[in-house]
Amino acid sequence: MEYLKEKIKKEGKALNEHVLKVDSFLNHQVDSNLMDKIGDEFANYFKGKDITKVVTIESSGIAPAIMTAKKLNCDLIILKKKVPNTLNNDFYQTPVTSFTKGNEYNLTLSKGFIKEGERVLIIDDFLANGEAASGAIRILKEAKAEIIGIGIVIEKTFQPGRNKLEEQGFDIYSLARIKKLSEGEIEFLGE
Amino acid sequence: MEYLKEKIKKEGKALNEHVLKVDSFLNHQVDSNLMDKIGDEFANYFKGKDITKVVTIESSGIAPAIMTAKKLNCDLIILKKKVPNTLNNDFYQTPVTSFTKGNEYNLTLSKGFIKEGERVLIIDDFLANGEAASGAIRILKEAKAEIIGIGIVIEKTFQPGRNKLEEQGFDIYSLARIKKLSEGEIEFLGE
Repeated sequence: MEYLKEKIKKEGKALNEHVLKVDSFLNHQVDSNLMDKIGDEFANYFKGKDITKVVTIESSGIAPAIMTAKKLNCDLIILKKKVPNTLNNDFYQTPVTSFTKGNEYNLTLSKGFIKEGERVLIIDDFLANGEAASGAIRILKEAKAEIIGIGIVIEKTFQPGRNKLEEQGFDIYSLARIKKLSEGEIEFLGE
Repeated sequence: MEYLKEKIKKEGKALNEHVLKVDSFLNHQVDSNLMDKIGDEFANYFKGKDITKVVTIESSGIAPAIMTAKKLNCDLIILKKKVPNTLNNDFYQTPVTSFTKGNEYNLTLSKGFIKEGERVLIIDDFLANGEAASGAIRILKEAKAEIIGIGIVIEKTFQPGRNKLEEQGFDIYSLARIKKLSEGEIEFLGE
């Protein structure tokens, strides 16, 4: 997605070999027109696949995911990192360790929102080690959903996420693929 | 907003006198068409006020807020509850105690995203005690922004949030106003 790549080139900041700061348009300040275009792009790629739910992980995936859900005319499920105080005891849960953020949390999904056989599309902002996506997959499989695809805004191709997920046979669509980061430099795949 | 009220009547669950569970369309499962309509409603009310930024609080406000920002053709700022590891030391911070959720956090805004004199619209999912909104106001005032209005999806009118904010002169637009909750019963203002 050319527009996104231009945005990353212009505003993204490689802090070191692993961390890309995109908080001026994706994480902290969010470019609403970019989110709309991202929604179009994912919806266009996955249209015709009868997606019944878009699923994302709290909280940086919410903006691109709600736009995608709107374009696919379906509901969004936000997998929670904390158990809400309104949740009863009827939920699925799986532990996730984020190497990137250096934290651990229990991904939580209330039972009933994902029914057996639902055709789900997972949307997230980053794919690096694939820990968050793998957690989402575990929880969705527990709910007996069919995972139709995974849409990623920014993929770091030098980290093992994609391989882990492709080994399980998933269709991954990343809008920007970054081959290499070093302080002040961002290299895209195929450039 | 009639459509929202119908949704609350049909799917909302009053767990007790204080807690309204709306996780089937607002918090956990999110109705993307409803979010789109909510965006239209807020944008329509605040259009012509030259809003330059929509501001929300992580994470339940993100879905309605990004839709509103899109319709107002401006960026969204997500005030963070945790300091992201990509953030340098240049940020505003204010402590917020959530009585509803029984937790405390430091609301954080990176300096530079809100410039002096920016015309901001605060969007949040709930207004109860007004703690989160008051935190957002403190941080935005520190950044010298002009707070043009506050858009709330669901207001609990029996809690002191609105009064606290109105005393400071803010224009508050709530899409659904709930007068009373009791186990299994939801009473709207004016009904």
